[in-house]
Amino acid sequence: MTTSAAPLADVGRLIVQGADQPGIVSAVSTLLSRAGANVVSLDQYSSDPRGGRFFQRTVFHLPDLPNRMEALGQELDEQLGEAFGLTWRLVEARKPKRVGIFVSRADHCLLDLLWRQRRGELAMTVPMVISNHPDLGEDVRQFGIPFIHLPVTRDTKPEVEKEQLNLLKGNIDVLVLARYMQILSGDFLEDVGAPVINIHHSFLPAFMGAGPYLKAKERGVKLIGATAHYVTEDLDEGPIIEQDVVRATHEDTAADLQRRGADIERLVLSRAVAWHCDDRIIRDGNSTVVF
Amino acid sequence: MTTSAAPLADVGRLIVQGADQPGIVSAVSTLLSRAGANVVSLDQYSSDPRGGRFFQRTVFHLPDLPNRMEALGQELDEQLGEAFGLTWRLVEARKPKRVGIFVSRADHCLLDLLWRQRRGELAMTVPMVISNHPDLGEDVRQFGIPFIHLPVTRDTKPEVEKEQLNLLKGNIDVLVLARYMQILSGDFLEDVGAPVINIHHSFLPAFMGAGPYLKAKERGVKLIGATAHYVTEDLDEGPIIEQDVVRATHEDTAADLQRRGADIERLVLSRAVAWHCDDRIIRDGNSTVVF
Amino acid sequence: MTTSAAPLADVGRLIVQGADQPGIVSAVSTLLSRAGANVVSLDQYSSDPRGGRFFQRTVFHLPDLPNRMEALGQELDEQLGEAFGLTWRLVEARKPKRVGIFVSRADHCLLDLLWRQRRGELAMTVPMVISNHPDLGEDVRQFGIPFIHLPVTRDTKPEVEKEQLNLLKGNIDVLVLARYMQILSGDFLEDVGAPVINIHHSFLPAFMGAGPYLKAKERGVKLIGATAHYVTEDLDEGPIIEQDVVRATHEDTAADLQRRGADIERLVLSRAVAWHCDDRIIRDGNSTVVF
Amino acid sequence: MTTSAAPLADVGRLIVQGADQPGIVSAVSTLLSRAGANVVSLDQYSSDPRGGRFFQRTVFHLPDLPNRMEALGQELDEQLGEAFGLTWRLVEARKPKRVGIFVSRADHCLLDLLWRQRRGELAMTVPMVISNHPDLGEDVRQFGIPFIHLPVTRDTKPEVEKEQLNLLKGNIDVLVLARYMQILSGDFLEDVGAPVINIHHSFLPAFMGAGPYLKAKERGVKLIGATAHYVTEDLDEGPIIEQDVVRATHEDTAADLQRRGADIERLVLSRAVAWHCDDRIIRDGNSTVVF
Repeated sequence: MTTSAAPLADVGRLIVQGADQPGIVSAVSTLLSRAGANVVSLDQYSSDPRGGRFFQRTVFHLPDLPNRMEALGQELDEQLGEAFGLTWRLVEARKPKRVGIFVSRADHCLLDLLWRQRRGELAMTVPMVISNHPDLGEDVRQFGIPFIHLPVTRDTKPEVEKEQLNLLKGNIDVLVLARYMQILSGDFLEDVGAPVINIHHSFLPAFMGAGPYLKAKERGVKLIGATAHYVTEDLDEGPIIEQDVVRATHEDTAADLQRRGADIERLVLSRAVAWHCDDRIIRDGNSTVVF
Repeated sequence: MTTSAAPLADVGRLIVQGADQPGIVSAVSTLLSRAGANVVSLDQYSSDPRGGRFFQRTVFHLPDLPNRMEALGQELDEQLGEAFGLTWRLVEARKPKRVGIFVSRADHCLLDLLWRQRRGELAMTVPMVISNHPDLGEDVRQFGIPFIHLPVTRDTKPEVEKEQLNLLKGNIDVLVLARYMQILSGDFLEDVGAPVINIHHSFLPAFMGAGPYLKAKERGVKLIGATAHYVTEDLDEGPIIEQDVVRATHEDTAADLQRRGADIERLVLSRAVAWHCDDRIIRDGNSTVVF
Repeated sequence: MTTSAAPLADVGRLIVQGADQPGIVSAVSTLLSRAGANVVSLDQYSSDPRGGRFFQRTVFHLPDLPNRMEALGQELDEQLGEAFGLTWRLVEARKPKRVGIFVSRADHCLLDLLWRQRRGELAMTVPMVISNHPDLGEDVRQFGIPFIHLPVTRDTKPEVEKEQLNLLKGNIDVLVLARYMQILSGDFLEDVGAPVINIHHSFLPAFMGAGPYLKAKERGVKLIGATAHYVTEDLDEGPIIEQDVVRATHEDTAADLQRRGADIERLVLSRAVAWHCDDRIIRDGNSTVVF
Repeated sequence: MTTSAAPLADVGRLIVQGADQPGIVSAVSTLLSRAGANVVSLDQYSSDPRGGRFFQRTVFHLPDLPNRMEALGQELDEQLGEAFGLTWRLVEARKPKRVGIFVSRADHCLLDLLWRQRRGELAMTVPMVISNHPDLGEDVRQFGIPFIHLPVTRDTKPEVEKEQLNLLKGNIDVLVLARYMQILSGDFLEDVGAPVINIHHSFLPAFMGAGPYLKAKERGVKLIGATAHYVTEDLDEGPIIEQDVVRATHEDTAADLQRRGADIERLVLSRAVAWHCDDRIIRDGNSTVVF
């Protein structure tokens, strides 16, 4: 899957989803064609050709796109929204996503994201990193990114979440938990107004909850894994975006599994963030469609 | 990638390729929409949005398809062939491909194909298996498939190739070399009038030619692989369809690598055949586009 | 990992396990050296150098081994059993394991084992295949192996298990459940007097119990897997021998996952059986050491 | 494979290699046992039990090891060197390897090594990083590691190599080329007096020489890879330590392959360095034994 680190100007992405019915693909491509757009790539999926759910991601090139977004939006409202009852989202590829990051003490996922961003692999900016520990401040600031230390205790959590929300709201398009070892409240998730991506250090749904590497060692599994998923109120139960595994043997201690697993965690999380920033992921109930 | 072992009636596949230009996606979907077809899935790829090569595979449902193939073909000729200079291919999904198989002595690739066909995983029939050795006759006939033994020597090769062509022509849609240890002549490849798929027992372009596992052992590689490719006159140089690898260690003898590699060979070949039978592969010069 | 399909005569395997303590490796190698044996390969593992559990597998060559087994056993009893309190097992590599197979209707795991056995990849013989369905009789008998059909209902199960035990006892060294869809009773497992290997069609401990592919589809996982494990009274909880996974996408239906998973199931089971037949697996509580 | 980031005091590693013959394993373990050492782990491999090459890595615990190294060395000389004609190497696990790094402009392999070192994953120190470009100076110095910029032109190369040697000699145990885009002369390799590890950005022996990702794109391969190997005078021909691959598709441009490949390069190189630092790799002609 190609990630568009350097999208062209005048490139747009149109995400369409809803109940499947004949004629949607044709309606979308005709609309774009009449507007003067050239389709660069098109991915389409229907959960069932008869009465299923429809998903489409179309990348197109349209001269002077920024000035034509509004008019295009009106046509989409009429020709897809009203005529077919579909939901759509129109995005300019030139605009990187603003990604807020929460982290605790482990540095591997955080550093991997910041480094990939610096080398141009991720279509994102990082307006801020917030941590409940001070440890990673210097590392973050060396990338020229603000680091804010907000300690959390059981008592101060509601108050700290308000402070976090105050910092985030209006400033981010997506929040990434890069090994943040605090559970976010349902209120926070509702108020933050942006999708939240978490990396879980196991192959979900195996080893949900805390201490997955120790559980994996105890169960004697021969593979360990990591899972990136959208966060919902049901801990470790949100829609899965990406997963991967690596081999383990009887020789590996729980600490070895943790070290080995860290390589998978950062890889899986960086893929999930790259795809999210390229508008490749569409939520489908508690699953995801990844184009 | 889903393989359609049991395609629905009235499902068609349209493969389009040629020089990219604005409006192709729209033209195809409008044509299908006006004909009353519903798009089931659509894959599209352009090697370069500005002046590249265009490829599209569209699966659609159209009532009474068998009786409408001819009229649809005429429209495609006019609206894609003449208007855009594109090449197209229209296929009824309900028709399984007729797959001829050449084999020598090794049974693993052959048995895997026949067994997958029997259990309904491959949208194919096997009209005949031809071998230069008699060893696998009983195995093949137990699947109810004709087995023809045609020994080959350096002297008889031209004559035997004529006999092979006589058996194949008109009876197959694709020829699969399931570990056939004879080189086919350029004349044969030209005359057979069907694509030919080979499985090579290495990760091409490493270890071309004979004895790849011995070469791999000598070079001390840590992975061994297999490659399925279309056969051209340039031995081991044709367009690659699929490749995979498995880990090797210093402990593996050349015989171990051969045993281990056999698992990869049969897996890679069966994927290539499944995709070919589902019209998922489009040749692009000496490469392939696999949807 | 090399599998010894064609072990040499006069090759022995010595498996030693117990509480770790200084001097075990030296004691074993001195004993073998004095007996005139040459060590071919040696694998050793200690769960913790201070007070852990010790495991060792030594392959050696000793002229006239069959006639020296008894004397060697006495020395092992004295010098490892009595002196160190260790458990040991001495095996002649030339003797293939006798593998009984239970199967229901799915043929992929069964056929893969029989093909590999015929090809010389597995150091085993198959004295009999027992099934609760008649479907696979012809396939099995073509390999020259007896197929016994023993239907099972809830009422007849205790009686049938007695019949199964009667057929197996004394005739097998290990029992393989190659997709056998009946749960074996605790009494059966106790009485059969041989280890039992099962293939579970998920990456355990995810999706325990029935219908794992449907559960995987519902949970939206991006990888599906299979697990070979020794059977204990706790269903799907026995010591894991081997696991592997394959990628899944939103396009895969539950039926697709099942088809795709079958490739992993047969691969994982065949590895587990190969390793068991080569005495590479040592049980360690509810885990396994695989050398 | 476990990497010993935090080796215990008094832990030693003994590497033995030479012509195989009966009694070596016993001689080694008896020698260690008499010295009062307890074997922690033992890996052994013989290329052929009859007249092959013998390799063994033994990790042991011996109280007061630092003060006993010399006496142990004398015993090894007598009982392995003189009696069996074997080569041996005795190492204290508590001493990290001193790893010099050469780099050009690409940062991914370098940073990954430095991060892992800081995190305690690699049993190494990095006395210096030398580069023919100034670009990565700031990144390196943030880790508290000296960065030396030595530009190289065709004319100055012999002189610069002398300067490099002057900096390295006596200060390093191994030299790592973390994407260093200059070819080292045979004289340099001879004089440096330490093994040199390189990361090549292809699955060797495919795509040797420069520009492997472009070649991979042109050949249309479906997997791309990376290879870590010891450097010899024969470019890209030295003993392979580790290799891995990642999937590629028709959609990937050469730049995509390069980005994707970078993930494999840094993973493969870090494994090779970790294993080298743990004395897990033994050269065997133009291959490696990796325990």
